[in-house]
Amino acid sequence: MNSVPRDKKNSNPGQSGSAKGFAALDSVDFPDFAPGSVWLVGAGPGAPGLLTLLGYHALTRADVIVYDALVARQILEWRRGDATLVFAGKRGGKPSAKQQDISLRLVELAKENKRVLRLKGGDPLMFGRGGEECQLLAAESIPFRIVPGITAGAGALAYAGIPTTHRDTNHSVLFLTGHDASGDVPSGVDWENVTSASPVIVMYMAVRNLPKIAKTMLGFGRGADEPVAVISNASLPEQSVHTTTLGKVSDNPDITRLPTPALVVVGKVVDFHKDLDWYVKALRENPLG
Amino acid sequence: MNSVPRDKKNSNPGQSGSAKGFAALDSVDFPDFAPGSVWLVGAGPGAPGLLTLLGYHALTRADVIVYDALVARQILEWRRGDATLVFAGKRGGKPSAKQQDISLRLVELAKENKRVLRLKGGDPLMFGRGGEECQLLAAESIPFRIVPGITAGAGALAYAGIPTTHRDTNHSVLFLTGHDASGDVPSGVDWENVTSASPVIVMYMAVRNLPKIAKTMLGFGRGADEPVAVISNASLPEQSVHTTTLGKVSDNPDITRLPTPALVVVGKVVDFHKDLDWYVKALRENPLG
Repeated sequence: MNSVPRDKKNSNPGQSGSAKGFAALDSVDFPDFAPGSVWLVGAGPGAPGLLTLLGYHALTRADVIVYDALVARQILEWRRGDATLVFAGKRGGKPSAKQQDISLRLVELAKENKRVLRLKGGDPLMFGRGGEECQLLAAESIPFRIVPGITAGAGALAYAGIPTTHRDTNHSVLFLTGHDASGDVPSGVDWENVTSASPVIVMYMAVRNLPKIAKTMLGFGRGADEPVAVISNASLPEQSVHTTTLGKVSDNPDITRLPTPALVVVGKVVDFHKDLDWYVKALRENPLG
Repeated sequence: MNSVPRDKKNSNPGQSGSAKGFAALDSVDFPDFAPGSVWLVGAGPGAPGLLTLLGYHALTRADVIVYDALVARQILEWRRGDATLVFAGKRGGKPSAKQQDISLRLVELAKENKRVLRLKGGDPLMFGRGGEECQLLAAESIPFRIVPGITAGAGALAYAGIPTTHRDTNHSVLFLTGHDASGDVPSGVDWENVTSASPVIVMYMAVRNLPKIAKTMLGFGRGADEPVAVISNASLPEQSVHTTTLGKVSDNPDITRLPTPALVVVGKVVDFHKDLDWYVKALRENPLG
């Protein structure tokens, strides 16, 4: 359906508004996606409507799209009709493309003079290993561009009605990953510092290790009554938000069975969820966001 | 110019790709922007091309747009031709709209049965006080939606070729604001904890207080040789990136005169800038991003 006439019809019948819709953007001079270059694009947290205009522009131009597991199917369907799709996802339990192999493939495709779109969930430089891919591209003198995306943490909190920061609770927020390449709690994280770092902590890929992380945080002085939210499938119709406390999480192995991908939030901002939970009922029926 | 034919002509003459461009999105059923509701939309870090599809959709539907100082003019120009613009910016040195007045205005406009677009720089819930606006909307039973945007910190680092996280340097990143409502270093921040919180720290609105912040961080144990980047006017043609070290910043009052808005990054990821600085030369001539 073309929703432009619908909206005009519904509410501003007497006005001569020039709603032009998305077609107006086809006369805008977006940056050229040159053959032989690589664009690293963040697809955002899940909902296709959270892709950027630059990201969409890249999709309509790319010759080949190297994409990750968490990129929505609808986003891929917006590609140019004759573009080639290359899956480079890493998901638990399945054989994974190795990071170095992915980076080398990008170089190889660019050297074939393709427009190469590297499409990653969330933001390419935030827990996305895009930096490593850029390093190899730079070393091989392949021109590249980074198109940031909405990182899963920020997107998940927005769709759960949880402000990342709020004047009454925090002037800072810490984002961290809750597992390393082996799936374990990352050894490179200084948990004592992390625990006291910020009133709000947002953790990626932390559900599997959550009881262990909660125990660690309690041991380093966070309160047992500190609110925790686990946001699964953020920004998608199947999104679910489970709220609890650090004390309860540490005793509850069932929490590790919540659906993934999931983001975990620790801090008083979680309490806003009950009043600001806007992503409900009919709003959840639209897969665009 | 319409770049669809250009790209097809240049590189895939023999292929029958169905590049449809942005116009294809006009037949997509984006969420309805109902009269009497408020959408809080993040406009991203600066470049208009970093607006989301949902954000653009909202612009083409809104009856009234209440916008902040840092929203790009080009983004506002994408609005419906008969939409009303309301400026609610807060910039140093000029009379500022009060937060409570802005929230009340949103309620008032929604009660007039308008489609109200609240357009904020970056992400509405990350140092954007969107949470407070949602609280009043919820209290007044005004339906609202939050459309996350790319937060300035993530966008600035992407455009400076600085990975927010990198396997070799950090599993976490701390975002914090470097000034409070009075313009001073926020008293609510525990600087000892912040300093040791994470290998990478990204600070918003911190340039004015940077020598003081650097001294504090040195006092709490960060190294004098720790790399620092100040990214001004991120993602815009006038972007500049100034790299230095914590030790040098603490002695240099001139640093406070770097152009704003600016983001400050502390941590070893700053060293990637020299190799990954992709936003250069001709790429900077396009105001879209």
